[in-house]
Amino acid sequence: MSAKISPLAPARQPQMPAIAGVRLGSVEAGIRYRNRTDLSAIVFDHPAQVAGVFTRSKCPSAPVDWCRKNLAGGRARCVVINSGNANAFTGKLGVASVKESARSASEIFGCKKGEVFLASTGVIGEPLDASRISAALPALKQKVREDQWPDVASAIMTTDTFAKLSTRSFTVEGKTWHLNGIAKGAGMIAPDMATMLSFLVTDLPVDAGILQGLLSKNIGGTFNAITVDSDTSTSDTVLLFSACNGEKPIRDARHKAVKALGKALGEVLHELALMVVCDGEGATKQVEIKVTGAKSAKSAKRVAMSIANSPLVKTAIAGEDANWGRIVMAVGKAGEPADRDRLAIWFGDIRVAHEGQRDGAYDEAAASAVMKQDRIPVRVDLGLGKGEATVWTCDLTKEYVAINGDYRS
Amino acid sequence: MSAKISPLAPARQPQMPAIAGVRLGSVEAGIRYRNRTDLSAIVFDHPAQVAGVFTRSKCPSAPVDWCRKNLAGGRARCVVINSGNANAFTGKLGVASVKESARSASEIFGCKKGEVFLASTGVIGEPLDASRISAALPALKQKVREDQWPDVASAIMTTDTFAKLSTRSFTVEGKTWHLNGIAKGAGMIAPDMATMLSFLVTDLPVDAGILQGLLSKNIGGTFNAITVDSDTSTSDTVLLFSACNGEKPIRDARHKAVKALGKALGEVLHELALMVVCDGEGATKQVEIKVTGAKSAKSAKRVAMSIANSPLVKTAIAGEDANWGRIVMAVGKAGEPADRDRLAIWFGDIRVAHEGQRDGAYDEAAASAVMKQDRIPVRVDLGLGKGEATVWTCDLTKEYVAINGDYRS
Repeated sequence: MSAKISPLAPARQPQMPAIAGVRLGSVEAGIRYRNRTDLSAIVFDHPAQVAGVFTRSKCPSAPVDWCRKNLAGGRARCVVINSGNANAFTGKLGVASVKESARSASEIFGCKKGEVFLASTGVIGEPLDASRISAALPALKQKVREDQWPDVASAIMTTDTFAKLSTRSFTVEGKTWHLNGIAKGAGMIAPDMATMLSFLVTDLPVDAGILQGLLSKNIGGTFNAITVDSDTSTSDTVLLFSACNGEKPIRDARHKAVKALGKALGEVLHELALMVVCDGEGATKQVEIKVTGAKSAKSAKRVAMSIANSPLVKTAIAGEDANWGRIVMAVGKAGEPADRDRLAIWFGDIRVAHEGQRDGAYDEAAASAVMKQDRIPVRVDLGLGKGEATVWTCDLTKEYVAINGDYRS
Repeated sequence: MSAKISPLAPARQPQMPAIAGVRLGSVEAGIRYRNRTDLSAIVFDHPAQVAGVFTRSKCPSAPVDWCRKNLAGGRARCVVINSGNANAFTGKLGVASVKESARSASEIFGCKKGEVFLASTGVIGEPLDASRISAALPALKQKVREDQWPDVASAIMTTDTFAKLSTRSFTVEGKTWHLNGIAKGAGMIAPDMATMLSFLVTDLPVDAGILQGLLSKNIGGTFNAITVDSDTSTSDTVLLFSACNGEKPIRDARHKAVKALGKALGEVLHELALMVVCDGEGATKQVEIKVTGAKSAKSAKRVAMSIANSPLVKTAIAGEDANWGRIVMAVGKAGEPADRDRLAIWFGDIRVAHEGQRDGAYDEAAASAVMKQDRIPVRVDLGLGKGEATVWTCDLTKEYVAINGDYRS
């Protein structure tokens, strides 16, 4: 947690409704930090249905392995989350630590180990002392309540400067349902996924298979369309739960309520993903990069990510410089089909380049005004086809270097 | 050109021998800078044989297109180089500018346009006024001499903080030959190639086809094994000339003298490439990353580049932090075969991680001592096969952000 809140933080936090049968909370377990909460749990009174997506890192953390395994069962009773230690690259000790945490949680919350989900974020390579988790779980059990969403969103933070919460309600056939989501993440944010944890819970009773389909479908344009620094964490985890509260889960993907949940999920994931970008380490600008006219959507996304990950583009944006030459450079290095003489580039509504050269009507003052905004839209048209993609990133500042050169995350 | 010289600059410049029949020099053409030379030429008294490699950018500059076309002829009489303007993404104006520059040079130096090679470096997207080049060429013709290698190495600089020169001599059957090389480049350095220009000249008479083979063979482990910021320029150009001075060029690739030239070329390219890394914008550390035990050499190089391009690894090195967790992260994100529990990592001779966890004998003080060095060797063994690769990079500092957020390159 940083003392200075990102200038791009939302002006206010949403009011998070209670979700029946879902209680959560956090305590100070002393895992790494002092004088702050670092151990959280989300507890389901009845077995919940669960879906998840994880980092594509070839060196995932021990808790990621654990969750992947349990996901096959499709049922959850609790998720236990710690910050301060990622339990990643901890070898056999890491596996033992996960097993011990899951054993304690299953005892405390009265469920099977296969219904316990675990997530850890923080330093990599340090053994995680599971006895601290076991020792703190009884106190945590006493603290979980239905209204603790903001509290848990804070407890899972590492280098984040603000808690990330989003919620939607949707009404189907006279009945109102809810979807609450929280996330953490500020650096090492790149596709696919990020140093990012996100937990989403709905009260609509939906089968795990359908949840998984909704999550997988919506992740590509949200959490997998953002990048802070092109780095990918070993620990990225998004879990989506349906707290069925004993009701029979819906198994029909075409059910009206499922469609409404899918829409809400897309919105909540989009909001949370953009909050992660806005909390990008050292960020002072949010940048939306839209690529059109590519040979395919996949090609468009690769070009967009090449721009979004370019240090030269990101430092120019930090310097409020409408340096479209660096955009051309980043298009060129993407390795995707591009024709120099068909390229057009806009900052906001200002077309700065057209047909392979500076736009004749280009007004540097107008482009500079766009660059002074907090949120900068960049559009690149390749002029080749109909492929489109939009991704989001932030600028690269001296503060990013300071945060990551001094703090051992 | 920056006022502050990189702390990693070589202590002294090499003495560059004259190469018979090769004259060079520079003048102030006022292309962008004031009070410094910005237009250079290397002139061959007799037709030279020439080979080249260029950026793989899909949006190359107009001079790159021009050189690629002329390379087919295999003969050169001069190369004209300007700094301050890259003539990249300048559309039809850029093509016209190249034609006009080549026409002037062919008149001034008395050769065909197809024997004129051109290179430009500097700002992208601004039209390059060829009349400034034409106007300055007569004065440049008067200034070219055999001893002006340092002068030209300085005139081609942009954000470089020191001139980059390297030379080797080799003796075959009692006769001594020479290879001189100069380069510029400090940012936008990534494979394949860099915002990098390099010109190499030998007096050994060698056929263009053989030169091309030698250059292509030696570029992979030198200029294509360095990265400053993962960005790739539109203008990268390496040209290798044999000033045959009327002698018949050697056409036998197995000739002793060709082998000696190949060895010298490897050494000169290696020296120049490492100078580019040491002049990386804002760099305070040179980092050598050696990956062993990969499934293949290609896989090893991808993993090495993933480490070398990771902002989190590079900022940790700037902070002198032996943060091997970030190395694990970068191995994991490379997408290449890796087994978390077989990984071993060294900083210098200090093994910090072994079999998927922190080395039992790991001494943080000893690792910290390595991190304080100017030149930091990092080794990663994947434990899977025999593939190896070595790449070089530099750290990522606040100064990099300052240089690229303020200066419009």
